[in-house]
Amino acid sequence: MTHGTESTRVHPAPAGALCDAFRQVRSWTEHLAAPLSAEDQVIQSMPDVSPCKWHRAHVTWFFETFVLKPHVPGYREYHPDFAFLFNSYYVSLGDRHRRPERGLVSRPSAAEVGAYRAWVDEAMVRLMSDADDALLATIEPLVVLGLHHEQQHQELMLMDIKHVFWSNPLRPAYRDETPPVAVPDEVQTEAWLTFDGGRFMIGSDIGSGSFRFGEFAYDNEGPRHEVLLGDFRLATMPVTNADYLAFIADGGYRTPALWLSDGWDRACAEDWQAPLYWEQRDGQWWHMTLHGMQPVDPRAPVCHVSFYEAQAFALWAGHRLPTEAEWERVAAEVPVSGNFVASGALRPVPPAAEADAPAALFGDVWEWTASPYTPYPGYRAPAGAVGEYNGKFMINQMVMRGGACVTPQSHMRSSYRNFFYPHMRWQFGGIRLAADA
Amino acid sequence: MTHGTESTRVHPAPAGALCDAFRQVRSWTEHLAAPLSAEDQVIQSMPDVSPCKWHRAHVTWFFETFVLKPHVPGYREYHPDFAFLFNSYYVSLGDRHRRPERGLVSRPSAAEVGAYRAWVDEAMVRLMSDADDALLATIEPLVVLGLHHEQQHQELMLMDIKHVFWSNPLRPAYRDETPPVAVPDEVQTEAWLTFDGGRFMIGSDIGSGSFRFGEFAYDNEGPRHEVLLGDFRLATMPVTNADYLAFIADGGYRTPALWLSDGWDRACAEDWQAPLYWEQRDGQWWHMTLHGMQPVDPRAPVCHVSFYEAQAFALWAGHRLPTEAEWERVAAEVPVSGNFVASGALRPVPPAAEADAPAALFGDVWEWTASPYTPYPGYRAPAGAVGEYNGKFMINQMVMRGGACVTPQSHMRSSYRNFFYPHMRWQFGGIRLAADA
Amino acid sequence: MTHGTESTRVHPAPAGALCDAFRQVRSWTEHLAAPLSAEDQVIQSMPDVSPCKWHRAHVTWFFETFVLKPHVPGYREYHPDFAFLFNSYYVSLGDRHRRPERGLVSRPSAAEVGAYRAWVDEAMVRLMSDADDALLATIEPLVVLGLHHEQQHQELMLMDIKHVFWSNPLRPAYRDETPPVAVPDEVQTEAWLTFDGGRFMIGSDIGSGSFRFGEFAYDNEGPRHEVLLGDFRLATMPVTNADYLAFIADGGYRTPALWLSDGWDRACAEDWQAPLYWEQRDGQWWHMTLHGMQPVDPRAPVCHVSFYEAQAFALWAGHRLPTEAEWERVAAEVPVSGNFVASGALRPVPPAAEADAPAALFGDVWEWTASPYTPYPGYRAPAGAVGEYNGKFMINQMVMRGGACVTPQSHMRSSYRNFFYPHMRWQFGGIRLAADA
Amino acid sequence: MTHGTESTRVHPAPAGALCDAFRQVRSWTEHLAAPLSAEDQVIQSMPDVSPCKWHRAHVTWFFETFVLKPHVPGYREYHPDFAFLFNSYYVSLGDRHRRPERGLVSRPSAAEVGAYRAWVDEAMVRLMSDADDALLATIEPLVVLGLHHEQQHQELMLMDIKHVFWSNPLRPAYRDETPPVAVPDEVQTEAWLTFDGGRFMIGSDIGSGSFRFGEFAYDNEGPRHEVLLGDFRLATMPVTNADYLAFIADGGYRTPALWLSDGWDRACAEDWQAPLYWEQRDGQWWHMTLHGMQPVDPRAPVCHVSFYEAQAFALWAGHRLPTEAEWERVAAEVPVSGNFVASGALRPVPPAAEADAPAALFGDVWEWTASPYTPYPGYRAPAGAVGEYNGKFMINQMVMRGGACVTPQSHMRSSYRNFFYPHMRWQFGGIRLAADA
Repeated sequence: MTHGTESTRVHPAPAGALCDAFRQVRSWTEHLAAPLSAEDQVIQSMPDVSPCKWHRAHVTWFFETFVLKPHVPGYREYHPDFAFLFNSYYVSLGDRHRRPERGLVSRPSAAEVGAYRAWVDEAMVRLMSDADDALLATIEPLVVLGLHHEQQHQELMLMDIKHVFWSNPLRPAYRDETPPVAVPDEVQTEAWLTFDGGRFMIGSDIGSGSFRFGEFAYDNEGPRHEVLLGDFRLATMPVTNADYLAFIADGGYRTPALWLSDGWDRACAEDWQAPLYWEQRDGQWWHMTLHGMQPVDPRAPVCHVSFYEAQAFALWAGHRLPTEAEWERVAAEVPVSGNFVASGALRPVPPAAEADAPAALFGDVWEWTASPYTPYPGYRAPAGAVGEYNGKFMINQMVMRGGACVTPQSHMRSSYRNFFYPHMRWQFGGIRLAADA
Repeated sequence: MTHGTESTRVHPAPAGALCDAFRQVRSWTEHLAAPLSAEDQVIQSMPDVSPCKWHRAHVTWFFETFVLKPHVPGYREYHPDFAFLFNSYYVSLGDRHRRPERGLVSRPSAAEVGAYRAWVDEAMVRLMSDADDALLATIEPLVVLGLHHEQQHQELMLMDIKHVFWSNPLRPAYRDETPPVAVPDEVQTEAWLTFDGGRFMIGSDIGSGSFRFGEFAYDNEGPRHEVLLGDFRLATMPVTNADYLAFIADGGYRTPALWLSDGWDRACAEDWQAPLYWEQRDGQWWHMTLHGMQPVDPRAPVCHVSFYEAQAFALWAGHRLPTEAEWERVAAEVPVSGNFVASGALRPVPPAAEADAPAALFGDVWEWTASPYTPYPGYRAPAGAVGEYNGKFMINQMVMRGGACVTPQSHMRSSYRNFFYPHMRWQFGGIRLAADA
Repeated sequence: MTHGTESTRVHPAPAGALCDAFRQVRSWTEHLAAPLSAEDQVIQSMPDVSPCKWHRAHVTWFFETFVLKPHVPGYREYHPDFAFLFNSYYVSLGDRHRRPERGLVSRPSAAEVGAYRAWVDEAMVRLMSDADDALLATIEPLVVLGLHHEQQHQELMLMDIKHVFWSNPLRPAYRDETPPVAVPDEVQTEAWLTFDGGRFMIGSDIGSGSFRFGEFAYDNEGPRHEVLLGDFRLATMPVTNADYLAFIADGGYRTPALWLSDGWDRACAEDWQAPLYWEQRDGQWWHMTLHGMQPVDPRAPVCHVSFYEAQAFALWAGHRLPTEAEWERVAAEVPVSGNFVASGALRPVPPAAEADAPAALFGDVWEWTASPYTPYPGYRAPAGAVGEYNGKFMINQMVMRGGACVTPQSHMRSSYRNFFYPHMRWQFGGIRLAADA
Repeated sequence: MTHGTESTRVHPAPAGALCDAFRQVRSWTEHLAAPLSAEDQVIQSMPDVSPCKWHRAHVTWFFETFVLKPHVPGYREYHPDFAFLFNSYYVSLGDRHRRPERGLVSRPSAAEVGAYRAWVDEAMVRLMSDADDALLATIEPLVVLGLHHEQQHQELMLMDIKHVFWSNPLRPAYRDETPPVAVPDEVQTEAWLTFDGGRFMIGSDIGSGSFRFGEFAYDNEGPRHEVLLGDFRLATMPVTNADYLAFIADGGYRTPALWLSDGWDRACAEDWQAPLYWEQRDGQWWHMTLHGMQPVDPRAPVCHVSFYEAQAFALWAGHRLPTEAEWERVAAEVPVSGNFVASGALRPVPPAAEADAPAALFGDVWEWTASPYTPYPGYRAPAGAVGEYNGKFMINQMVMRGGACVTPQSHMRSSYRNFFYPHMRWQFGGIRLAADA
């Protein structure tokens, strides 16, 4: 897999291929929302969470605002107030509804949001189908960006509905049926892979040019640039629930010396005793999943831990977290496959160990890195509203890598930089250990 | 209208009459909920507000808990978790769902709450129909209490949905059609009625005995007792929007000397410039109503003011608020009629002035009194969970009297004591002036 | 003791008597501050507390502002910024330093505040000594008001320094020597006195006229007016620590049914387990006093309880709190004597029981009444800044009566109305029970 | 200046030299406290600020705890409670007084803290003077660490007292006399220096070994390691007030596109319009200094800006902030001299431009870098309480470099890593621009 070295593009994707990608991503959103009632879609259980209905409308507003309005002559907005309601954080696009109040909006209804989606879908497909090559070359990057944007929100929809259902004392399940999980004969947790240091290229330049759906990168993944690494080791497997239970049993949550100072303050203030969504029933650990409350599987990767917990665990284990450069240097040589959303598991599953290769590097859980989310050397945010996408968040957050069991596989790549505040736990975040060689 | 002097009851109401009252009150709740979608019914726009669905279920839980469980042998609860979800504040009945989290519960759905209501209704009607006189005598007070409790929540449903819709930037209307309002030829605002002082009986003793639906009083209305009043005057009319606009124009919201200290702090902290729900558009005052945004009618009684605003207005006007004893001494001689919920206006309307009689003493707006909500002499809260109904709130609140345009007429009487914290504004609260004679 | 019936005054007090009262009150303030270092005088341990230095300056500013500036031609302020720093809450007198920031002011120093006091004292004495009768008649009410104001702050100084020292982990003592306390042979706690009901006059009209130092009342004590009381009983003694320990032992702090709802919320939020300043050491209750940590004396009146605790205790004991009218009807016939600040005890002491008379009605502890602090019938706040003294606080607070062990005796009278929010505990507040006869 | 390559140490410093350094640092602390009254020393104007008296005692506690107690047989603590009061954040050393309550402690007095200092000083000097070589080798690293620790608190004392005095409406001056400042003929603000990229060593290994006072580094400065830099440019001069005024005038504080999202939220919430301590009087900018309120000097480096402001300014100027590696690569070749605390200026002064060399790289203002404060590769926190010194703060903060006008010169070196949260402004923080070459 090569990145960004050839950013020259001769001609746009055929309109048909773009339409297909568009229809596929858009219909997957509706597929994910299908198990939810109108009432489920209106709840905002904490400020970080958005109602499902809002996600469905916001990604639609993105296409309407950045593609349809500028490129369809005489385009009529579906509703004049939707720009106010469904703009997320694009300050340059005018006033927005306050984020913590997204859950106060019973109307438009989920059904009307569905109609809004259909209206925009029809206009989009007509635009793409009728476009000549020049227009197609202009809109393709925006469409592709919009589709990746929608894929991000697909993951957020699942993260958010999990939190919504956990906030309900009845603990309803998002899906009732639990698909069978293939469990490996043996889970090998203490194996390590060793990598030589040196000078390596990381990142991607695709984000700065035009792109096809399958050849996309965000601006924050570039510029591709050289890094200097020492020799290091990376754990073959992510940290499992069994590993993490040992940390809990050893007093990990009661030992301040293991914790960063800010993390200890947060853990005390919120009385952390275990990962988010865990609770003890009759001495047994259970956790909330998208299939309802389930016993914690000791062989599965631990999930819903904050950076603070990941760092404390790593220190307790005598190791450390990998930097994002170390992670990418390894991941660039590994195929992007694993337990993604299409598996239907919707939770991390025990990974199959392989000889001489990292297991579950992609999928299952986002892996916390030791790297703060900062711009790569030479990074410049693009001009205009699209420039607000990533750059302005480059402070106070930590990079996560690899995607999770709620991520669409086609959304993932080795250079992908996800980012969360170190105290956050509602994303599907886990741990992979590293060490100096 | 006489109060409490004859509390002896020979025999219970005929079961049929009780069933009729039950069916009437219960169906009115559903009538009020009918314009609302399932999504409308799940929103909690501030901690004081409860979702409409919660109201519909909570009043049902009341009958299930206090009537069906103790009196129907082998009664099976509709759902084992509903007692947790729909108990409001009865500490003695076990754990409750935290009040500010009522808006996080998408399930049970509004439809399932409807099924719950039907289940309980059927059991209630069967119980009442089959009851012998002894059982009827036992359950009648509980049924009647439950019906008055449900009427209180009918008013809360309207107060709350108004706040919910106001919290939505689209400002939807609860009902689209605005019924025509009969406007009097002339509104006379500066007339006063004079009353002699002396010793008067106020309050009601009904609450301490058994009762019929039409002869009910809450425990907090008793004991009936003697009070000593000086000569006083009472304004014929409630304060109108025109009066209140003069207060605003004269700098009422910018003159600390008019305000109680706590009120001034609150007004500054929340930047009060007008009653709740008011906003200026192009120099004109509009306000949110249950029929959507409407221009402020200068002839209608001012509404949605706090006690602090009422007190500041009265001081500005050179008068004062009446005590609850003064108010009741006048109201006891006035028929309980006015602009109640059944009129469909759902907002205060310009009252018709009458010679020598107070106008709109009942209905339109709850009238703030100068009286803190404290127990009457000799008051004792009843034993058991029902005893938590009123007594434990007798601190830090002020008494309001007379009912409003969202109150059921059969719920009102001259001894009725409503109570709110002095900063609260989402109830339909207005002002009537008093003065020493 | 007669009240307010003869408000006509023929001639002012002799200047000498006024000067004597002035010197006496002013020097007592400095006497109280004498044990405190400059550092002790700068601390504000919570927003309700003011630094001792601030009290000493604020009461001085009162004389400078209301007496010297208007009545001494060419008077030069001691410092142009002091009006900003030492105005407490007189909105009409211009901007003030924010109350919670009083503890941030190291300069002016305590010594400079002493110089400010001396400057004002000298000007005041000169003014009073040189005044002719007309001027004396004009300034006497202001001087007397200022002296009573200063006496209030003398009590606040002791309340506040107690809290300051309690906030210091070293728990220093305000005074080291503990004066011997005469202990009665027997403490009789369960005796009651019975009073007939009827129509009674309460309150004082002195506040509305001119006054001498010994014949003073605040505006909030008037107008004197008639009240209607039922027959009632009043406990001979205030509730003792032994009584209160029984309440604690019986689970008083864990029984929500005893508490007002707001009180229970507060008790839970702040984890109340005992009165303020109490702590358990090796199974024994100790409490902070102005003489440092001391064992709790079971025979002494309980102190530092909130209204919420007083009300819960009364309900637990099967009785109630007296109304302020009941309290005053009894107190008007009792001499104003007891354990006041001059005794040097600085804490409640076991009262001597007397036959057929209430013990410790004055002094020891302020007694919570069941009465919200509201204006008496016909009350009007005086015009101007002095009118901000009392009236604007007539909401959300409860009346306390009788004075405490930190109150100057000459400051107390049977009509005196003190007031605190029901959650407050740092004042010397205790309990006396009442019951219907 | 070489770093860490020769960490072998043959013999300790002569005791005399260590004693001299000890006396010098300790007496400088008292020199800095000398202008402050006892009352000045007790104030804590915000949680980040500590009272001066606390600083003086805390640094003394450090020597008592880490040197005297372990190494003086039979050493008697000065006061048994001081360990509780004056431990800052060493969790492993037991309970501590809560940080936000440091301002509540009037006792021990400033004078008693002085006696505590004298007691510890005497014991320290005796210990060092009497020590044989073995003991000296053991204690020297602790003494040296303690002295550098005290130097940090010397800077904090000045930062904190500035905030304390600014919180006083009278705005007192720490020192009255303003020393004359030599102003260069011409201030050249737009000059740049260009540096080639490549592989460079940064950091220091001294921190991991033993050390003399003049050869010290903290653990967080190591391990010394190789970094890879691109070609870059660095501004010759720090950003001046004139530059910053242009940013303000151009709407810098009103342009969200210039700001990181978290920074914009903070700026809005706290209504930032200019650096901390600035205020406009009659259209002219003044700012609080340690010499009281002064007009802003356009030629001096801007100071008291947060990272957020620094980043917004850099983006507005079309450049960026340097990384800490770039900064150190330049600074390692520059002598450590500049406007440090000993100059007495106590504020940034207009720097003299030099040809081909960076001006004011050391002293004047700490320079924000673009680097989050994270561990260097291979960093391990030392074991024990000393290990809590730096490592546990390596999250959510940004690195600042170079020292300021309140820093002791002997405390500074090119590898020194200071760190603050990006919103903090009370430290003497400024801006130097960088750019890609």
